[in-house]
Amino acid sequence: MTDVYFDRIALIGIGLIGSSIARAVKAKGLAGTVAISSRSRETLARARKLDLGTEYIHEAGKAVEGADLVIISVPVGASGKVAEEIAPYLKPGAIVTDVGSTKGSVVAQMLPHMPKGVHFIPGHPIAGTEHSGPDAGFAELFQGRWCILTPIQGTDKDAKHRLAAFWRALGSRVDEMDAEHHDKVLAIVSHLPHIIAYNIVGTADDLETVTESEVIKYSASGFRDFTRLAASDPTMWRDVCLHNKDAILEMLARFSEDLAYLQRAIRWGDGEKLFNLFTRTRAIRRSIIDAGQDTSAPNFGRPLDAGQED
Amino acid sequence: MTDVYFDRIALIGIGLIGSSIARAVKAKGLAGTVAISSRSRETLARARKLDLGTEYIHEAGKAVEGADLVIISVPVGASGKVAEEIAPYLKPGAIVTDVGSTKGSVVAQMLPHMPKGVHFIPGHPIAGTEHSGPDAGFAELFQGRWCILTPIQGTDKDAKHRLAAFWRALGSRVDEMDAEHHDKVLAIVSHLPHIIAYNIVGTADDLETVTESEVIKYSASGFRDFTRLAASDPTMWRDVCLHNKDAILEMLARFSEDLAYLQRAIRWGDGEKLFNLFTRTRAIRRSIIDAGQDTSAPNFGRPLDAGQED
Repeated sequence: MTDVYFDRIALIGIGLIGSSIARAVKAKGLAGTVAISSRSRETLARARKLDLGTEYIHEAGKAVEGADLVIISVPVGASGKVAEEIAPYLKPGAIVTDVGSTKGSVVAQMLPHMPKGVHFIPGHPIAGTEHSGPDAGFAELFQGRWCILTPIQGTDKDAKHRLAAFWRALGSRVDEMDAEHHDKVLAIVSHLPHIIAYNIVGTADDLETVTESEVIKYSASGFRDFTRLAASDPTMWRDVCLHNKDAILEMLARFSEDLAYLQRAIRWGDGEKLFNLFTRTRAIRRSIIDAGQDTSAPNFGRPLDAGQED
Repeated sequence: MTDVYFDRIALIGIGLIGSSIARAVKAKGLAGTVAISSRSRETLARARKLDLGTEYIHEAGKAVEGADLVIISVPVGASGKVAEEIAPYLKPGAIVTDVGSTKGSVVAQMLPHMPKGVHFIPGHPIAGTEHSGPDAGFAELFQGRWCILTPIQGTDKDAKHRLAAFWRALGSRVDEMDAEHHDKVLAIVSHLPHIIAYNIVGTADDLETVTESEVIKYSASGFRDFTRLAASDPTMWRDVCLHNKDAILEMLARFSEDLAYLQRAIRWGDGEKLFNLFTRTRAIRRSIIDAGQDTSAPNFGRPLDAGQED
């Protein structure tokens, strides 16, 4: 029994993130009982088949009964409903957390439902892949990635430390900031990139002069990188856009402003300006690799024959 | 001796692409002599050290003397100068090709210098990585990728077939189209993605409210994907922007139009519109994987511990 052992963990939602947590908890022996709940009976059956937990319960309320740690891994637009549903069943002293990509909205939705004596500590593991659903998870997903906690003022220190220790046990490094700042940071590092990726793939899809088959065949020249993000779960990303609107609109405005400046340099053939813009971005790539957040292998270390036809 | 053996190949420019060709030619035994030329003496010395060819000649003109196949792999803005320089030394019957990312401009720059009896056939292998220079090349770079030839009207069929066979011997598949269409296709699949990537990395770098250290730490949530393209060679990309201006400006206009539409959906909370936009892009990713142009492994198959600290 480690320092971060919980008698009963309830996982509400068992997609990519929920099922990765389940797998890691099992691999590291962090819990006695792991109760898994999903509003989709199909997903729940799949989780059982994959042997992700120890109990499979359709009703979220029943799943959280007696749990010491409750982790909500649902699209952020569903957080309020889940909070309302589980509130009457939460055990005093339980830690309730989530993994949502927006934090201001999640706090606004969930906090009003949280009973006294329950430790509600919002969280967000900065990890994922373009795949979704319980089959997509894997125990090592959080290894070396950051998890951001956005505790509300007055949060119990012991509870916070237990939750941070839990994420560390999953391989994460843990940071803390307020929800508003989190939402600004994520708007630029995650939400804007996804929106831009979805957009450029849409633009390519709409062309009359270039066929879809050409876009696909020649995608290795850059385009294919964007299609990975644009293959992410549409429900999750719809909710992110709806629930981090202000920060996203600010980042979009800045992006468009910068793009107009770059476009003007192209139109007027300002080679020096273009060269300078294209030079300074190299340093950031280098820093990301040095910080352990990406690989230096060419093309992300893609297999050389990346799915070749033969 | 295979069907595509050349007595003497001259490689003008020995960066990522040139040095990958050199390595592949050597690995497959496609040439007797491989003369390598670079206007940078440092690069040429490095090529010699790496043992990429059989002769190392600073002057491009001397390098092409007696060559049956001349491949020019320089930033597209330098094509005209190279063409002028080598023209007097080209052997009648020689094939001259290039690997530039824009084709209309390369034809306009090079064609006027090409002597009668020389087969000038512009080309563009759709392959690369974010790394540059002679050390970055590898023999398998063209494996499974497309190479587009944009022959000028009246091009000798035998010469074209020899060049296509050469690319096939390097592992490429070969396509043919006119230069104007090539430039439109590449504007969407390659030039726009790179420009957008450079731009978003610049936008992130300029924020006052989010620190650079935060951008780097949390980059695994999407941003890091863009930094790879934005780490590409600035000279090459300055030249692409200057030499495919019209097609790029058209794609940028379409992209911005689509982004304004998406932005409006976010501002007005139109969840259905967002969901639809985010759904249709998944199919393209699937097609790219099915066509052998990307891997289905999560996160491009990045190592799980992607460059973790310690």
